[in-house]
Amino acid sequence: MSDFKEKFSEYISLVEENLRKYNAHSPGTEAQKDLIEAMNYSLEAGGKRIRPVLVYAFCNALGGDIGNAAAPAAAIEMIHTFSLIHDDLPAMDDDDYRRGRLSCHKAHGEAMAILAGDALSVLPFGLIADDDKLSPEQKIRIISELARAVGKNGMIGGQVIDMQNEQRNDVDEANLRNMYRHKTGELISVSCIMGCICAGCTDSTVIGAAKEYGYKLGLAFQIIDDILDVTSTTEELGKPVGSDEEENKTTFVTLYGVEKAQEIAGNITDEAMRCLEKFEDNSFLRQLTEMLLKRKN
Amino acid sequence: MSDFKEKFSEYISLVEENLRKYNAHSPGTEAQKDLIEAMNYSLEAGGKRIRPVLVYAFCNALGGDIGNAAAPAAAIEMIHTFSLIHDDLPAMDDDDYRRGRLSCHKAHGEAMAILAGDALSVLPFGLIADDDKLSPEQKIRIISELARAVGKNGMIGGQVIDMQNEQRNDVDEANLRNMYRHKTGELISVSCIMGCICAGCTDSTVIGAAKEYGYKLGLAFQIIDDILDVTSTTEELGKPVGSDEEENKTTFVTLYGVEKAQEIAGNITDEAMRCLEKFEDNSFLRQLTEMLLKRKN
Repeated sequence: MSDFKEKFSEYISLVEENLRKYNAHSPGTEAQKDLIEAMNYSLEAGGKRIRPVLVYAFCNALGGDIGNAAAPAAAIEMIHTFSLIHDDLPAMDDDDYRRGRLSCHKAHGEAMAILAGDALSVLPFGLIADDDKLSPEQKIRIISELARAVGKNGMIGGQVIDMQNEQRNDVDEANLRNMYRHKTGELISVSCIMGCICAGCTDSTVIGAAKEYGYKLGLAFQIIDDILDVTSTTEELGKPVGSDEEENKTTFVTLYGVEKAQEIAGNITDEAMRCLEKFEDNSFLRQLTEMLLKRKN
Repeated sequence: MSDFKEKFSEYISLVEENLRKYNAHSPGTEAQKDLIEAMNYSLEAGGKRIRPVLVYAFCNALGGDIGNAAAPAAAIEMIHTFSLIHDDLPAMDDDDYRRGRLSCHKAHGEAMAILAGDALSVLPFGLIADDDKLSPEQKIRIISELARAVGKNGMIGGQVIDMQNEQRNDVDEANLRNMYRHKTGELISVSCIMGCICAGCTDSTVIGAAKEYGYKLGLAFQIIDDILDVTSTTEELGKPVGSDEEENKTTFVTLYGVEKAQEIAGNITDEAMRCLEKFEDNSFLRQLTEMLLKRKN
């Protein structure tokens, strides 16, 4: 197994272990057990775990102890999961399936899915505050960055843009880039930032490079999603292909076609790679970036 | 105007001013403006502002500078508002009206209401982290207490108990007390705790008394809600009376009748008053407690 693959699977194991630990069944009431089951149902649905892996990888690239990154890594995956649960709701995207199995509201009912998402939006801030590895200053900085990235001017703002774009037929590249930057870029970018803070970094040039890398990776990631929606199979992708066209969505593929979209994603990935030059020990991050560009699902 | 009334209206003015300040329209996109409008719609709907007033009052009762309590006071009202928006959703209580006007999802659509609630669940943690009055240690303690009080073992856990009780016909006093403690008590209790922390208090006996006072006040508050649902008028209450009976809900009134429920609320209020003995300058808090017991809506 290559160094890359070994490190990648080490990070994934840590993520799974910590998600379980931080969302453990407490000896609470029956009601709390049901809520925690709904939370775990979606937390355990798998997915790529890219965001927490980025927290570990940036911490490691700056020579930090990845033990310090456990709480922020779990936190970002919980926030991502909360956003998926609420995104799938009937009033939102109305998706019955997620990662090849029933979405949370289909498995646990709509009310429980709303509450499971709510609980997963709040728990992350508590577990960072209660962490025993990070300093108060690190925790405050991480919570501030996380709340900004998630909130009205971050990911949630991006979901509003996405929702409003459904009513429009004049979505252009600038709008699409702005939507992707908010909806996907902010969480990926803050994962990189949090990794730097966990390593004890306070250098704004380095943190700025991590932030910019995250935005670029997030954008490339989304464009590749647009491409896979037309080039992949439902089996490979774990969700129905062709859904963008069916829903009349503007994407990089509808704007430019597959070939040109691939070229754009490649260029943005190159730009992301250049952001990594600020990090001496960047070989894992370079390989991760490449893996994401070449992914089939 | 009495000292009490003067102080009460001073606190209310501070709450209104800070809610506007912390949720200000940023020069963002059209989409963000719509989101912030939905957030403001519910934030500005009024209500009693009991929770932020308690933050100020406990800070003041311990001789603290209430300027230090601005962020936590706004934060708790945002959390309360987020919970009301999501509670009113069709999949939850399905309420079209709140405080005499359309609920958020009726005025802004269901998807926007979900997202406005989400944004109001996250923003509070950011504004506490970004506050320039509190120390890092105070911020961490406040965020930890707040996340605990809101999360799966706190208010959200209480909403799950409430939801599951709708399917049951064996709800007894112990269950009801547990549900009220979580659903209402936790947010009221953490408001009192945060006020103490804002005053620089680290004495666990004092903080424990504030916490217990909050639980008792929350319970008395809920029992009085049960009573007003049968004794008030729709006009006084700003929402339809008799809804508990219509929905077959178990309440302290259905268990014990109005008179006995009033007696229980009175006893719990006395217990709350005794918790206040730990606070030297408690005259405002005593009057506030009495006002809430005698309220008509």
